[in-house]
Amino acid sequence: MNYRLIVQQLGMLVLVLSAILFVIWVWSALALGLDGNGVLALICAAGSSTIIGTALYFSGKNGKNKRGTGSMGRREALLLVSTSWLVGAVIAALPFLYWGRSEGNSEHPFYSVVNCFFEAMSGLTTTGATILTDISTVPAPLLFWRSMIQWLGGIGIVVLFVAVLPSLGVGGKKLFKVEAPGPEPEGVRPHISETARILWLIYVCLTGIEIVAYKLAGMGWFDASCHALTTLATGGFSTHNASTGAFNSRTIDIITIIFMVLAGANFGLYYAAVKGKLKVILKDPEFRFYIFLLTAGSIIVIFSLLGSGQPIITTTGVAEQATIGDAVTQGVFTVVSQQTTTGFATADFNTWPFAAKAVLIMLMFIGGCAGSTGGGIKVIRIWVAFKVMFSELERSFRPHVVRPLKVGKTAIDSELKLATVAYVLGVVVLFTIGCGTIMLLESGNPDCDMTTAASVSIATICTVGPGLAKIGAIENYAWFTDSSKLFLCVLMAIGRLEIFAVLVLFVPRFWRSS
Amino acid sequence: MNYRLIVQQLGMLVLVLSAILFVIWVWSALALGLDGNGVLALICAAGSSTIIGTALYFSGKNGKNKRGTGSMGRREALLLVSTSWLVGAVIAALPFLYWGRSEGNSEHPFYSVVNCFFEAMSGLTTTGATILTDISTVPAPLLFWRSMIQWLGGIGIVVLFVAVLPSLGVGGKKLFKVEAPGPEPEGVRPHISETARILWLIYVCLTGIEIVAYKLAGMGWFDASCHALTTLATGGFSTHNASTGAFNSRTIDIITIIFMVLAGANFGLYYAAVKGKLKVILKDPEFRFYIFLLTAGSIIVIFSLLGSGQPIITTTGVAEQATIGDAVTQGVFTVVSQQTTTGFATADFNTWPFAAKAVLIMLMFIGGCAGSTGGGIKVIRIWVAFKVMFSELERSFRPHVVRPLKVGKTAIDSELKLATVAYVLGVVVLFTIGCGTIMLLESGNPDCDMTTAASVSIATICTVGPGLAKIGAIENYAWFTDSSKLFLCVLMAIGRLEIFAVLVLFVPRFWRSS
Repeated sequence: MNYRLIVQQLGMLVLVLSAILFVIWVWSALALGLDGNGVLALICAAGSSTIIGTALYFSGKNGKNKRGTGSMGRREALLLVSTSWLVGAVIAALPFLYWGRSEGNSEHPFYSVVNCFFEAMSGLTTTGATILTDISTVPAPLLFWRSMIQWLGGIGIVVLFVAVLPSLGVGGKKLFKVEAPGPEPEGVRPHISETARILWLIYVCLTGIEIVAYKLAGMGWFDASCHALTTLATGGFSTHNASTGAFNSRTIDIITIIFMVLAGANFGLYYAAVKGKLKVILKDPEFRFYIFLLTAGSIIVIFSLLGSGQPIITTTGVAEQATIGDAVTQGVFTVVSQQTTTGFATADFNTWPFAAKAVLIMLMFIGGCAGSTGGGIKVIRIWVAFKVMFSELERSFRPHVVRPLKVGKTAIDSELKLATVAYVLGVVVLFTIGCGTIMLLESGNPDCDMTTAASVSIATICTVGPGLAKIGAIENYAWFTDSSKLFLCVLMAIGRLEIFAVLVLFVPRFWRSS
Repeated sequence: MNYRLIVQQLGMLVLVLSAILFVIWVWSALALGLDGNGVLALICAAGSSTIIGTALYFSGKNGKNKRGTGSMGRREALLLVSTSWLVGAVIAALPFLYWGRSEGNSEHPFYSVVNCFFEAMSGLTTTGATILTDISTVPAPLLFWRSMIQWLGGIGIVVLFVAVLPSLGVGGKKLFKVEAPGPEPEGVRPHISETARILWLIYVCLTGIEIVAYKLAGMGWFDASCHALTTLATGGFSTHNASTGAFNSRTIDIITIIFMVLAGANFGLYYAAVKGKLKVILKDPEFRFYIFLLTAGSIIVIFSLLGSGQPIITTTGVAEQATIGDAVTQGVFTVVSQQTTTGFATADFNTWPFAAKAVLIMLMFIGGCAGSTGGGIKVIRIWVAFKVMFSELERSFRPHVVRPLKVGKTAIDSELKLATVAYVLGVVVLFTIGCGTIMLLESGNPDCDMTTAASVSIATICTVGPGLAKIGAIENYAWFTDSSKLFLCVLMAIGRLEIFAVLVLFVPRFWRSS
């Protein structure tokens, strides 16, 4: 294992984060002056992370020369990926912690180290679970940073799963390659960086468009920017306690819906579209199934809302009699937000009828498309897993009939089938372990019932954020014990990095030099 | 599809059941006289089923001659298996219904057709879920019949999965073949009937030994017989409202534990042992893992019982301070009873600490060994599924290392791996559908919470019987709506017949002549 190369790369990551912190500091100092604790916290964090980054970078650099390799193998890549999210979260937590301590209010959630780390990990994994009981107490620069880490986490995942991992052939990632011919096969390096560059550009452009759309719909620049950053990342951090419900505007809801849907689709498709193959998007079987799921889910939720006859309680606490228009907007918004694992909320769906909640929980498991910023099991895996189960059913009476399982025009080989079904089962096992562990860790808390434990396990593994009961849309994660919070950080990281990248670290054979 | 052959076979099944009914009638008439409604119900049921059986047998017979085949293909076998349990349950329900109606008390659970069918299906699938609110109201002959149908269901499953299905190569049943060389390969027919005959003998002998053991431990002949019939079937119907807890005897508990463990192991092993290969049992990897799970589960439950310091509430309603002896007996008994999917109870484990309940629920999912009378996913499948998930984890950093997955000395091929993992995932999906459907069907009932719905879904699919909350050890299934009861009958049948045999009927291609 080439540890020094990994350390060097981590140093580079920390330096990039510190540069971004500097930029945000300059911007907020210009807007708000140099005095505020929020602004001070940013420059302190930027300074510390520059020191840490430089130290890491230079202590790593020699490793490359000594070994003379400098190349990144599969094991190095996996270790780098998981440590990136860990180190990234530590750096991302610094501004929160500096601010929390400089305020000196030990009652504020950001006073606690665990809380700051949790918020940072929740951001970087694009989960959007927050320990903030009152967002309005946090100064604007920190809220912007909070949105920014989600945005960075989002693009990080897209680049990782669309550009980097497929080139390394890690963990059956073949499944996620868009069918259209991408750039011609060539050396791996140029391929990765070329793809990554275009993905960045797409991501930045989409964010820019969304900011402008929000502004036109009546949001201020600050809210528009923060919300656009967290929408594209399917993160879900908001600048308001009532989440997007605070704006109480159907136009804003619709804009958010559109960009959440875009963020939950495979960015490889947009890459292909940029390369001139627009049709690829509509022909992609995963994209079509994704849209089908969103539509079907919305229809069930809307009808169950209308059928129940109960008022819809918004996140601002208003109970409105559900008109058809309300039911449609709130239903579609919540379905899209939960399936794409964004976690924005306009309504307290914990009060909705059972059928609606059941559909939302199912969709949380499914999640976004492969190569999107969305979490969850991923649409394509669900599709393949169900096809496999169906064909196994057929095999019980026709064992000799071999019917190739196809995604679009590509036949899925048996290795990939096994990997996919095992992955889905792995998420279920992880969910069960998560649920049980939370029940044990919170056994002293009578408020933490089975529904809460189950939904917190899904909401973190699938990087959604809000769930049901005590972590519903109008609740938060502040009440968990510190050990639960750290455990949830692990779940978020495992879920975000698609299990393998984190769990392999616990396999003894991983550490042995082959 | 050779329907007439199936009808004929069903006729034979019904005639066998009617013959058993006659025997029980003679026995109870001798003991209790001819007058009682219970005795009358038996002879009416025996008469009706003789008529039905004869009609089926002869309407089927011509089919064989016309087609001139008379042979059983895979599709015929699957259809016969699922219709057998359906028709069997209808016949098994007759005595209950005749008695319920002759008593004329519309308040009694057996007055309802759905209840009688539910009780019969619960018996024949060896689930042991009961709709009886007070077992003491039912006369002895009917209680004996109730135990008898579990016993018949148990041996039916063993013969099916150890002797019949492997010979037909249905549904990846290769996994379940005991490794020892069985009878030499020969024509399929003699092989099946020879194996089936020995399995019957083993089953009858074990039952006989258990009856004598119970009698020596102080039970009456009637209770001893009824309980032995339902223990060997891992069924769990008792002749007392407080289940085995009614006897309040540690000796009886220990006897029950031993025979539950035997019933939950692969009968193919006993077959091999009879054939002179005793060592096979101890060397069998599934058996060893099964014993390991029972031991590990017991240890966790015992420690959590002792650690909680709470009194153990027995099924008779007595709260005893948990001594070490109590905790050990109650812990082991409940773990064995729930994992083997028997469902006998000595204590109300719904009041136990969360860790104990979580372990019990996990073990319910796992269930007994393949080729046992136990339900659940089966120990061997869990073992293979976890091995597959682990090897997939390893593949993410060493994609080219191929390590054969072995059960004992046999390597599992990739087809079987996929079938196994897909099966496990299928059970999870079925569990989810079951849980959601029960929530919807019982949406008018505020008592039916998520825990109840989830545990009723597991308790029926895995053919356990009792679960948590409203279907706990001291509760029953009488309060469900009729539609829920019928749905649970379907779940029990699907679970008992290992999914495929029932679900294939819903695959359109199954019905097309190849």
